[in-house]
Amino acid sequence: MSDVARFDLYAFWRTSATYRVRVAFHHKGVQPNEIKVDLEAGEQRGAAWLQINPMGAIPALIDHAPDQPRTPITQSLAILEFIEETHPTPALLPPDAHGRARVRSLAAMLAADTHPLITPRVKKHLTDVGGFDEAAWRAWQIHWFTTGLQAFEQRLASEPETGTFCHGHTPTFADICLASIVVMTRIFKIDVPDIPNVQRIMAACEQLDAFARAAPGLQAGAPRS
Amino acid sequence: MSDVARFDLYAFWRTSATYRVRVAFHHKGVQPNEIKVDLEAGEQRGAAWLQINPMGAIPALIDHAPDQPRTPITQSLAILEFIEETHPTPALLPPDAHGRARVRSLAAMLAADTHPLITPRVKKHLTDVGGFDEAAWRAWQIHWFTTGLQAFEQRLASEPETGTFCHGHTPTFADICLASIVVMTRIFKIDVPDIPNVQRIMAACEQLDAFARAAPGLQAGAPRS
Repeated sequence: MSDVARFDLYAFWRTSATYRVRVAFHHKGVQPNEIKVDLEAGEQRGAAWLQINPMGAIPALIDHAPDQPRTPITQSLAILEFIEETHPTPALLPPDAHGRARVRSLAAMLAADTHPLITPRVKKHLTDVGGFDEAAWRAWQIHWFTTGLQAFEQRLASEPETGTFCHGHTPTFADICLASIVVMTRIFKIDVPDIPNVQRIMAACEQLDAFARAAPGLQAGAPRS
Repeated sequence: MSDVARFDLYAFWRTSATYRVRVAFHHKGVQPNEIKVDLEAGEQRGAAWLQINPMGAIPALIDHAPDQPRTPITQSLAILEFIEETHPTPALLPPDAHGRARVRSLAAMLAADTHPLITPRVKKHLTDVGGFDEAAWRAWQIHWFTTGLQAFEQRLASEPETGTFCHGHTPTFADICLASIVVMTRIFKIDVPDIPNVQRIMAACEQLDAFARAAPGLQAGAPRS
């Protein structure tokens, strides 16, 4: 079985978590079969999808390799680790335990401590029962994008391991998660000030084919602008 | 250098993320030196702490082993991976890539997609600028604890890999993250219904010394009740 058909990736053009997985697969030279879950139509809250992921979120990955479990792999950080383990080169984690810890910490600052606060399910809950209108939601988005990216910037600026990319001179999970948040700020037209290292590293990422090909606007289903 | 003095763990008695790290260290037979960051006094938002973790959260781990970087390791999932890599036995991850993916996915459902929604910084923001009073905050807590634990339950009930613990018959990151959320529901006196597998596995965890010793009420600084 070639890698072309090995993986089904349940995906949507726009989401930050799906973007992370797309970059990682491109980096490894693997092309999964994408299956659309239409977030704008609310498919992620439908019964069929909740069978695959009871959290009602995407992406999810299914491995069709022979003799492997078909249990959907959810959560972008878990999928990144799985891709790295099953396709180790070119590496997306450093060779040393401290380096891996720093990269995972940076990745989690954004994927675990920033992005979950600005997902569609949080928007739905804050507007349905929290009394938020569109302006309050936008202020909420701006607050958490700014908090997360400025804290990230502070680490990039102060920690000696920062290089051309977040950790040294090759891209890692940290760059993937950073870029996944920056592309969201563009979609939502949010301008976070005072993040020069973030902007420098995002520009370096966008020079790489793996990141460029994952741009949300290039994915199937994206609006033509 | 003995392991007694190798690690400084910046910690607070009550927090879910610190609990995860305590369980993992106990499981490996390692005793870090704990340094208190008083969340009730707001120390996590002070300038001194923001130098260590610009996200203003705990825990953080510093490794004092010779010739290792002193960069603080933050984010509980990154710290768990670091502990597993530097102290591989007894293992807290399964031996196969699919098993590790499932464990990391379960762990992230709670540590990345549930807990960040109910942290002190989110409470502060919702009450300072979101118009939430104590009752609205409590409803918010209940909603996300319930959403996360019931989705987790659905996976435990339906996926064949579930055993005595979340994945097979030995504890993993998934059990650590699950227990870290269950102990929070107890502290906040929140009763999540219809989670029999969660309750069964929590009881199994509490039979283990590593989990029992990490109980928040047993930590330095906990109120005497």
